[in-house]
Amino acid sequence: MSGIILLPVLLPIAATDNSFKTAFDTNSNATFNNLDKLAMGNVHAGSSRLWAFLLANYWVSFVTFYVLWQAYKHVSDLRATARSSPAVRPEDYAVLVRDIPTDPQGQSKKEQVDSYFKALHPDSFCKSMVITDNKQANKIWEELEGYKKKLAHAEVVYAESKTTSKPEGTRPTNRIGFLGLIGAKVDTIDHCNEKINELATKLEIEQKEADKDKQQNAALVFFSNRPAAVSASQTLHAQMVDTWTVTEAPEPRQLIWENLTKKVYERQIRQYAVYGIVFLTVVFYMVPIAAVSAFTTLENLKRYLPFLKSVVDIKAVKTVLEAYLPQVALIVFLALLPALLMFLSKAEGIPSQGHVIRAASGKYFYFIVFNVFLGVTVGGTLYTSMKTIANKPKAAVNLLADSLPQNATFFVTYVALQFFVGYGLELSRLVPLIIFHLKKKFLCKTEAEVKAAWAPGDFGFATRVPKDMLIMLVVFCYSVISPIIIPFGVVYFGLGWLIARNQALDVYVPSFESYGRMWPHMHSRIVAALIIFQVLMFGYLGLKKFVYAPLMIPLIVISFVFSYACNSRFYRSFLNTPLEVAFKDTKEIPNLDSVCAAYIPPSLKPEKTENADHLEEGHTNVSKTETV
Amino acid sequence: MSGIILLPVLLPIAATDNSFKTAFDTNSNATFNNLDKLAMGNVHAGSSRLWAFLLANYWVSFVTFYVLWQAYKHVSDLRATARSSPAVRPEDYAVLVRDIPTDPQGQSKKEQVDSYFKALHPDSFCKSMVITDNKQANKIWEELEGYKKKLAHAEVVYAESKTTSKPEGTRPTNRIGFLGLIGAKVDTIDHCNEKINELATKLEIEQKEADKDKQQNAALVFFSNRPAAVSASQTLHAQMVDTWTVTEAPEPRQLIWENLTKKVYERQIRQYAVYGIVFLTVVFYMVPIAAVSAFTTLENLKRYLPFLKSVVDIKAVKTVLEAYLPQVALIVFLALLPALLMFLSKAEGIPSQGHVIRAASGKYFYFIVFNVFLGVTVGGTLYTSMKTIANKPKAAVNLLADSLPQNATFFVTYVALQFFVGYGLELSRLVPLIIFHLKKKFLCKTEAEVKAAWAPGDFGFATRVPKDMLIMLVVFCYSVISPIIIPFGVVYFGLGWLIARNQALDVYVPSFESYGRMWPHMHSRIVAALIIFQVLMFGYLGLKKFVYAPLMIPLIVISFVFSYACNSRFYRSFLNTPLEVAFKDTKEIPNLDSVCAAYIPPSLKPEKTENADHLEEGHTNVSKTETV
Repeated sequence: MSGIILLPVLLPIAATDNSFKTAFDTNSNATFNNLDKLAMGNVHAGSSRLWAFLLANYWVSFVTFYVLWQAYKHVSDLRATARSSPAVRPEDYAVLVRDIPTDPQGQSKKEQVDSYFKALHPDSFCKSMVITDNKQANKIWEELEGYKKKLAHAEVVYAESKTTSKPEGTRPTNRIGFLGLIGAKVDTIDHCNEKINELATKLEIEQKEADKDKQQNAALVFFSNRPAAVSASQTLHAQMVDTWTVTEAPEPRQLIWENLTKKVYERQIRQYAVYGIVFLTVVFYMVPIAAVSAFTTLENLKRYLPFLKSVVDIKAVKTVLEAYLPQVALIVFLALLPALLMFLSKAEGIPSQGHVIRAASGKYFYFIVFNVFLGVTVGGTLYTSMKTIANKPKAAVNLLADSLPQNATFFVTYVALQFFVGYGLELSRLVPLIIFHLKKKFLCKTEAEVKAAWAPGDFGFATRVPKDMLIMLVVFCYSVISPIIIPFGVVYFGLGWLIARNQALDVYVPSFESYGRMWPHMHSRIVAALIIFQVLMFGYLGLKKFVYAPLMIPLIVISFVFSYACNSRFYRSFLNTPLEVAFKDTKEIPNLDSVCAAYIPPSLKPEKTENADHLEEGHTNVSKTETV
Repeated sequence: MSGIILLPVLLPIAATDNSFKTAFDTNSNATFNNLDKLAMGNVHAGSSRLWAFLLANYWVSFVTFYVLWQAYKHVSDLRATARSSPAVRPEDYAVLVRDIPTDPQGQSKKEQVDSYFKALHPDSFCKSMVITDNKQANKIWEELEGYKKKLAHAEVVYAESKTTSKPEGTRPTNRIGFLGLIGAKVDTIDHCNEKINELATKLEIEQKEADKDKQQNAALVFFSNRPAAVSASQTLHAQMVDTWTVTEAPEPRQLIWENLTKKVYERQIRQYAVYGIVFLTVVFYMVPIAAVSAFTTLENLKRYLPFLKSVVDIKAVKTVLEAYLPQVALIVFLALLPALLMFLSKAEGIPSQGHVIRAASGKYFYFIVFNVFLGVTVGGTLYTSMKTIANKPKAAVNLLADSLPQNATFFVTYVALQFFVGYGLELSRLVPLIIFHLKKKFLCKTEAEVKAAWAPGDFGFATRVPKDMLIMLVVFCYSVISPIIIPFGVVYFGLGWLIARNQALDVYVPSFESYGRMWPHMHSRIVAALIIFQVLMFGYLGLKKFVYAPLMIPLIVISFVFSYACNSRFYRSFLNTPLEVAFKDTKEIPNLDSVCAAYIPPSLKPEKTENADHLEEGHTNVSKTETV
């Protein structure tokens, strides 16, 4: 949330009204002259003092290598420890099978999967669960759940209405037409009970039908032990590689059911289409914002919405609107961005929620580097420079290296703002608190509703990680030429560690667990930031006419080698579970029925209806006794 | 062999004396004008008849796609059938384990491997065989084998000397000093027997020592069934990915023993170093040839080797020498090339012979495309053009497209020469025949020696495949602008099919079997050739000022998509054995002792001494009865 509020402050507005950026630039240039004295700007071109900067680049890089290596090792060990714990996790015993070919003998998918895996894994195959088309069942189930909640709510309302003066109370009523505004008036409690019974029967029929007739070309296959599942998930099964794709199964709560049945070529086409769209989004996201900003000037508003005229003509309102109207467009568009990126990542056909978040996080990183880092540094000349850059890629480095020192203050302020305002909001959780109290006051009646309003959600890796990576990039890039940024970076990440730790342990509720699967993603982005830094420094030393600037080249080569070495040492054990890890501590034989049951979606769980009723009744009773 | 003879005819000689190329050019230009009338050269710039060429490009490409897809499918099926046959092949039951970490508990490698794999594969692990340092044993064994051969040879010589006039014969003698030229004279048969006994004892001691004290960080691990081995070879074993690298075991006869113990980082460094060297070789191979050619002119020869003067001054000799001296340098250097590329590929640390040949074949392909195709097309301007091209890559396409039609005749002649001379030599096997008869007459005495002289060797994929790929490239590139090349191409590949089939079935003895593993390699090179053709045609249509030339771009995109689709459908089943394939027809339980024994190198086989003796004796007896 904080990011959305802060981003407009940080983004170069390619809008008609870019007074903000200009104003900031004027300030920053003044401050910059002071900062510059502390740093590299006042070293003469060709001065031998540039050696110090060159050596500092090496120092920064090698310290980073050391820390990154240790961190990767540490995370890898943590992951191995967590994954080899004796706790029974359903995903450890399952593999996800996709692209099941059409069977020439007309077997059902279930029979086909069973016979195929029983033949190939005679000792360890346990059972299979074919993915079914649940759209209809989901719809009914959601409706059913809606009525259950409504019933609970109505019962509380009814109970509350039983005051001492009117002990029989008022039975709540509602209209059954569009949005509860039109149609016949009914007694809510009776109506809900009726609907629940009706839908429960319907759901049961639909569940049976889905199980029989709506089997899709994907399945989950369960094995009797962890090493067998791990081994199967990494082994090529079919001679035609586009059939029987076997991968590790995601956690049940991470599974994106509707993506499982997408075929291999469809997934690839979708992936490339999404990459194309993301590229266009990253490069041209500012264009619609500029267009909307241009449209929402005061004059245009007055012309198209004349009834606003009287309000707008008040001087105070006018001033405020003139200053903030373009920003509003920016805020709205930027607030939509994470959702758009999540949607796009999901559209790639990725089967697990964790993977979608990693993919969205990567996309957000590119966006933020291009639009914030490059946008601010090269500024308004970015779009005009792009053509030159395309023709002469070497010019890009020089252009960037040239603009870099001028924006030192801007980025120092950026980092400072992030921890003052960003962490402040994060730690106080002011906005969620206000929302919760409003909801509790006016909307929530049942215990479950209050709980849902209070739920802090999860960590928001998709936007949090790329923002931290941007700070990392900024701190790297200025670490040598304006080392004043380093204390700010230290405070940012130091406080970040404390705060994120607190939030992770005490506030947020993780919606899934990926066992450090995010780390390689962050690692490679930190290395990328380091390499960007080194290339820029190479360009900068060149601009300073330092004849030994080419000594930066070995450092860049070393960075690539480092990245490659880290990847070959650690990455594959994040991608695939090592047999070693799967094997450890597997003494007890798990209850495989409960393992399979974990993967059944709520809409298909047959016993769910009763269980849920019990639970719901329990809750309702409690809230009744409280409120009565 | 034929290639070495033909290549000088085909290579642009960047030597001082490049009269050859010039002479050829004069001829070709004359013929070209005739050919050109048949083809694209006389279509006016901007003519609407260029549509026909555009459509022909699409036609050629789509026919290629169809044929390639069918071929890939066919080869994939053949491979699956061959690999799933019930015959017991040792490599199907084994995996190769490299990068075994140092054991902290001080176990021997053998114990370490056994305990690790027994824990992770309790049901299927059978036994292991640690790779030992066999340098010493090999040396002794080779010496021993040498003496055995010498003994057999001497016995035949002795038997032959027993003529009717001198029934006791002459016992052969030799000197034991340097090259048999100096030192004490000994009776060969007695000396050999003595040495054999001595070395056999030494070998036995060395074998025991190697087995105990020279265990290395690699091993072969044997499993009790094929699916288990396949599954293990594809599963990540260790959390630290740079330890316990498990891969499919190569055939015993393909195993490159000395590469097995190279560590993972060493292999990677070697690989990149080799790539660097190959790049330099490809680009600058002509430079030393030019230098040597310049040095070996007649004048220089006369100056440095004055004793040749009288010979050289004979007019006939002089003419011949002047014409061919630079070519000799070229021939010598080019003859060394395949051996150099094989050496380099082996130096990468690849564990199997088949893989080394594929790697060398790839390198040879780059060499031949750069030096023959680009060399001839762009000709002498290649090196001078390179700087321009590096700065403006788009210029390269235009330059090539421009030079392409001028060389049509040259390449038609090239293809024709390849099948007239090349296939003629190949089919008649004239050179090997002469060599064999010379050897038989003067050197070979025993049956084994005659057999070794007659042995046709194997198919020579490392040079044969890239040469065919070059013809493929040439035929593609001229297929539309000079379609006269097509019949030549058809004859080349048609005859090639007949001849190679005959040679493969009746002449050559394959030294190993890779089950079609070469095909993906050839497939991707054919697709690369197709894409080069399309890019050049795009450039050519552009030069002809054809406004619809950009319509070639979708075709290029389709080619990339096709390549990607083929890869994702077929490639992985060449890289890893699919479980499906490994599972089929495995009814009988193999004799695992014989499976393991297949991997023991001859120098470490304990029973070898006796067996070999028996065999050798048998042979000797036969040859004795024949010769007596």
